[in-house]
Amino acid sequence: MAGESYVAVVGSGEADAGQAWLAEEVGAALAEAGAVVVTGGLGGVMEAACRGAKSRRGRTLALLPGDDRRAANGWVDVAVATGLGELRNGLIVRSADAVIAIGGGAGTLSEIAFALKTGTPVFGLGTWDTEGIVAATDAADAVARAIRHASSAVS
Amino acid sequence: MAGESYVAVVGSGEADAGQAWLAEEVGAALAEAGAVVVTGGLGGVMEAACRGAKSRRGRTLALLPGDDRRAANGWVDVAVATGLGELRNGLIVRSADAVIAIGGGAGTLSEIAFALKTGTPVFGLGTWDTEGIVAATDAADAVARAIRHASSAVS
Amino acid sequence: MAGESYVAVVGSGEADAGQAWLAEEVGAALAEAGAVVVTGGLGGVMEAACRGAKSRRGRTLALLPGDDRRAANGWVDVAVATGLGELRNGLIVRSADAVIAIGGGAGTLSEIAFALKTGTPVFGLGTWDTEGIVAATDAADAVARAIRHASSAVS
Amino acid sequence: MAGESYVAVVGSGEADAGQAWLAEEVGAALAEAGAVVVTGGLGGVMEAACRGAKSRRGRTLALLPGDDRRAANGWVDVAVATGLGELRNGLIVRSADAVIAIGGGAGTLSEIAFALKTGTPVFGLGTWDTEGIVAATDAADAVARAIRHASSAVS
Repeated sequence: MAGESYVAVVGSGEADAGQAWLAEEVGAALAEAGAVVVTGGLGGVMEAACRGAKSRRGRTLALLPGDDRRAANGWVDVAVATGLGELRNGLIVRSADAVIAIGGGAGTLSEIAFALKTGTPVFGLGTWDTEGIVAATDAADAVARAIRHASSAVS
Repeated sequence: MAGESYVAVVGSGEADAGQAWLAEEVGAALAEAGAVVVTGGLGGVMEAACRGAKSRRGRTLALLPGDDRRAANGWVDVAVATGLGELRNGLIVRSADAVIAIGGGAGTLSEIAFALKTGTPVFGLGTWDTEGIVAATDAADAVARAIRHASSAVS
Repeated sequence: MAGESYVAVVGSGEADAGQAWLAEEVGAALAEAGAVVVTGGLGGVMEAACRGAKSRRGRTLALLPGDDRRAANGWVDVAVATGLGELRNGLIVRSADAVIAIGGGAGTLSEIAFALKTGTPVFGLGTWDTEGIVAATDAADAVARAIRHASSAVS
Repeated sequence: MAGESYVAVVGSGEADAGQAWLAEEVGAALAEAGAVVVTGGLGGVMEAACRGAKSRRGRTLALLPGDDRRAANGWVDVAVATGLGELRNGLIVRSADAVIAIGGGAGTLSEIAFALKTGTPVFGLGTWDTEGIVAATDAADAVARAIRHASSAVS
């Protein structure tokens, strides 16, 4: 429902084992908190976050860059094939009340920057060291902070 | 999951009783067929289609024109506040394997035209009489045809 | 400059001789009136309108569907490769104070519908017979009416 | 014409004197090189770059975030009121063969990140110190490098 929190989990489509583990923990904790997990719908951090969410019966929304919904990873509940290319990074942020960034390259940086520009809080786990990001100590900390901000955003 | 059918239900945000009843029947039948119901997330036909879907435990995805998710009607499971204004009409069509149009004004016509342009089948119930739309006899007929096309699109 | 009128000329990418001639006349008359001619940047009506505008030293802006600027026809002054696919039809309308539609298929219909939805006046020359379009008698009439509306929009 | 180079100049809408001076030099040098100067169309670095371009009879294209063309600064030749909000930052990058970044905040960082993600070269003058940006020594150096890359991109 629209009154719930939506939290985006952003990061590289090619995560290493540590990042994937973090993302899965983040997804699971978000699901336990009742939040919808928003991602770009592809692999790596995106897939791990979705897998974590589904492991706790959470809900996952994917905003894909291409126009073929079948590009979504297998843990996505609802996918939007935006066909917007990298512009969909901005839609991911716009759809979320808070952003959790895990590792990541230039695409993740664009999401972080978009969030900072539009006043959406960003909680970081081993990601870019950009002014304005709140460094979280672990997955639970990132989720707790994100949920707190997201809840105040929607209430 | 991404392998399911996504069917958009488009129509006026201010439906009359007959249109609302049709939209609710369409939404319910789509849910029974296991399809995700995609709408613009607001009132009228959009709301009635979502209500119908939820009456059968279906799933509803909304693509809103504004940037506030809370504008979604109460039957929306997952909402994307696109902030794209009327351009989101194109995203609705792009997200769907088939479109069912019920009544509607210029916004609905833009969705029909997008669909015809991009080769997405449109099934009409008392809507614009545009070449290329397949006129359906009733809600069940529209849904049966849409599901048939959508299934072949994703398999 | 931003204070001038911007008028979109929309129509099929594969115009017949009569449509191309109309579009060229429209482009020329818009240029003489000092308006920026906005098109989708491809062939047919779009190219003829641009050619007409350049024949009177007018200015032409193209909003292309793809992400390669070189797809623009040779009469385009400034091209934006939007990469938005058919969604760019909405941007064309959004960029213009008035729309002149010449012939056209489903893509043109989407532009007409967008314009009607957003309150941008549409002047038609042998195009869709949609309620809300103002039928013009010839190129000069369409341009005179479009300029009148566009001027009042920007003043 | 579509065969020319398009170079985006990005930076804060509230430039200090040094940034404005740099941006004006960059705009002038781009115009002398025959490039179309692409900006977000507002104040600060955007306005200074446009002013520099017009001081050498160059051409300026603006992609505005809002839907009112009149928000463009007075040195813009052709403006597109995208109505996309901050997503237009991605369109600016997509429209350009190379990007020159001068100072800037989170919005500029989003443009840099988009460019790095999509393989568009970024030349920096006192801007974010992000891996992948090529630091330029002065305006002339940034323009020379940008033009070299842009020319190879369109030939």
